[in-house]
Amino acid sequence: MAQEQTVTPWEVKGDIDYGRLIREFGTEPLSESLLKRIQKHTKELHPYLRRKIFFCHRDLNWLLDEYEKGNPFFLYTGRGPSENVHLGHITVWKFTKWLQDKFDAELWFQMTDDEKFLFKDNLELEQTNRLAYENALDVIALGFDPKKTKIFSNIDYAKTLYRQALKVAKKLTFSTVKSTFGFTDSNNVGEIFYTSMQSVPCFLPSALKGKNIPCLIPLAIDQDAHFRITRDIMPKLGYYKPALIHQRFLPSLAGSGKMSASEGVQIWTTDGPEEVAKKIRKYAFSGGADTVEEHRKNGGNPEIDASYQWLTFFEEDDKKLEKIYHDYKSGKLLSGELKQILIDTLNVFLKEHQAKREKARKVLDKFILKD
Amino acid sequence: MAQEQTVTPWEVKGDIDYGRLIREFGTEPLSESLLKRIQKHTKELHPYLRRKIFFCHRDLNWLLDEYEKGNPFFLYTGRGPSENVHLGHITVWKFTKWLQDKFDAELWFQMTDDEKFLFKDNLELEQTNRLAYENALDVIALGFDPKKTKIFSNIDYAKTLYRQALKVAKKLTFSTVKSTFGFTDSNNVGEIFYTSMQSVPCFLPSALKGKNIPCLIPLAIDQDAHFRITRDIMPKLGYYKPALIHQRFLPSLAGSGKMSASEGVQIWTTDGPEEVAKKIRKYAFSGGADTVEEHRKNGGNPEIDASYQWLTFFEEDDKKLEKIYHDYKSGKLLSGELKQILIDTLNVFLKEHQAKREKARKVLDKFILKD
Repeated sequence: MAQEQTVTPWEVKGDIDYGRLIREFGTEPLSESLLKRIQKHTKELHPYLRRKIFFCHRDLNWLLDEYEKGNPFFLYTGRGPSENVHLGHITVWKFTKWLQDKFDAELWFQMTDDEKFLFKDNLELEQTNRLAYENALDVIALGFDPKKTKIFSNIDYAKTLYRQALKVAKKLTFSTVKSTFGFTDSNNVGEIFYTSMQSVPCFLPSALKGKNIPCLIPLAIDQDAHFRITRDIMPKLGYYKPALIHQRFLPSLAGSGKMSASEGVQIWTTDGPEEVAKKIRKYAFSGGADTVEEHRKNGGNPEIDASYQWLTFFEEDDKKLEKIYHDYKSGKLLSGELKQILIDTLNVFLKEHQAKREKARKVLDKFILKD
Repeated sequence: MAQEQTVTPWEVKGDIDYGRLIREFGTEPLSESLLKRIQKHTKELHPYLRRKIFFCHRDLNWLLDEYEKGNPFFLYTGRGPSENVHLGHITVWKFTKWLQDKFDAELWFQMTDDEKFLFKDNLELEQTNRLAYENALDVIALGFDPKKTKIFSNIDYAKTLYRQALKVAKKLTFSTVKSTFGFTDSNNVGEIFYTSMQSVPCFLPSALKGKNIPCLIPLAIDQDAHFRITRDIMPKLGYYKPALIHQRFLPSLAGSGKMSASEGVQIWTTDGPEEVAKKIRKYAFSGGADTVEEHRKNGGNPEIDASYQWLTFFEEDDKKLEKIYHDYKSGKLLSGELKQILIDTLNVFLKEHQAKREKARKVLDKFILKD
């Protein structure tokens, strides 16, 4: 049974209808001609673009106009450090790393430890602040260029951020925040102020360098609301509106493929191979038939199979993926075998990621911006 | 004609009824027994106490209990740097300096340059931030001990302050801010958040030193609203409620003696002797009779005479002040002569203040806390 969708920066729930999000949020679908325009610069397209995992945008054409005029952009994305990093988070950052490489772009990466403290009753500030640096290891492990990547905790970079956030805050009324996020008089005043802090990296490099620099934000679609606000305010401060490119959620492992991975069981970047295998065997929602005989005869349904859907995020080789799709659909590939493919794929990724993550501790300082 | 009173941190208007403020704000009048208790420690009483210019308080008895138990307090006051400093501002700080001397207390002095930017449409952040340091010269000129006095701009000390402000903000809803200040949905989100920043110095020394230290805030009564909120929240964070001691406003020069100096013509700490003389001769509201003959016969009314009221703030010698009172009331002292006494008194003060203010530029760094 379809569950009503909720997509806000703090809650993603129900079956997600991405077409409806495009209409409701007022974003543009990523068209074939826009993909071709990107490809002109990147030679190849990232699988997330080919597969429409990044599926809509704001002002990407304008951003490419500027780029082609010799006005390069910087990247901005972030993380709310309320817990360890799970595979859903990693996917946006992998794509961001690709953008950095292809466009030789600086990345400003915001750890919103203030936000998570303000919005989560059960979290202390010291916890979210500590998690900011633990989570940063996962970012660094993906291979970002230390010379072009600045990671900062809102709490520890507050002197720089608060000064700029005030300029946003002065242009932003409670009315707007209320209608954008559905806040009420019972929200705390930190929650109400918070979008001001999340807006700052959109123009901070411009403010610090004293010239207007375009900004591209790769993000999961749930964060769009903040930047609808930011985009309204930026011209009032004399800055460009940031361009956005939005990602679908990694589907929930236990769901029907339409729910976000933020619900239900998670695979953490720190999980060992046995944990990964156990979780997938136990929880991954199957699109296969009830019996082997039936499956061989009628085949499985990859569209609703969580393991297959996850492979669209983690198997980069289109040909391999296509073969899996057809083998599963035809009944040649059993659910257990499909799960094993996912287990192996994730474990290969995680083994390497975990090694890089530990090495990242030694170079953390090179990435961190503090006041 | 009496004008309805408005007393908020951002607006003071109309004829002030201080008894009514005590009832509405729920403060305690400064009783004779409390004054005696203070005097036990200070030997003499500051003229502002003898004259009930500081007229009410919160938790002063508790503060003295702690002091007598060997648990000394620190002082916290501040300034909204929206313009130069006028004589109305100086008066609270003069008293604060006396408290520092008598109780050997540390002073934390907050320059709310963020607040003034957020609340004043016509001010830029760079202006309020610059004014914070200009205004600090007036504070330093009063003779505060550089070893025991920390002056900080909210903007330039934001890393330290924002981290702590988040803890206040999480406990403070829009509902509370709305009912305390009369805010609406049209207020900007910075204004809504702001009380969190003003609360921080109440517990910052405790947070930094890892032990609970009592705090006394000398302040003009209009700032009480912020600290009603702060006092509710402090115990939830494990800190003492700050004690407060409230000052009447220096009356408006041009008003009937009941309006605040924040209305109408100001005397700035940078005014030269001729400017001071001109302003007082031209604007100071007189309680004298219309003609010299009538004045000699019926006398003047010091209660509504702005010059006399100002002398209660600036003439420290009780005997001199009493003589002026009687001479004026009896008609012996003419309005012009009374004005001249005030002019001379202020110019003596200002000459010395201006010299010290210029010297303060050289030692400013010794007082300033920055991240």
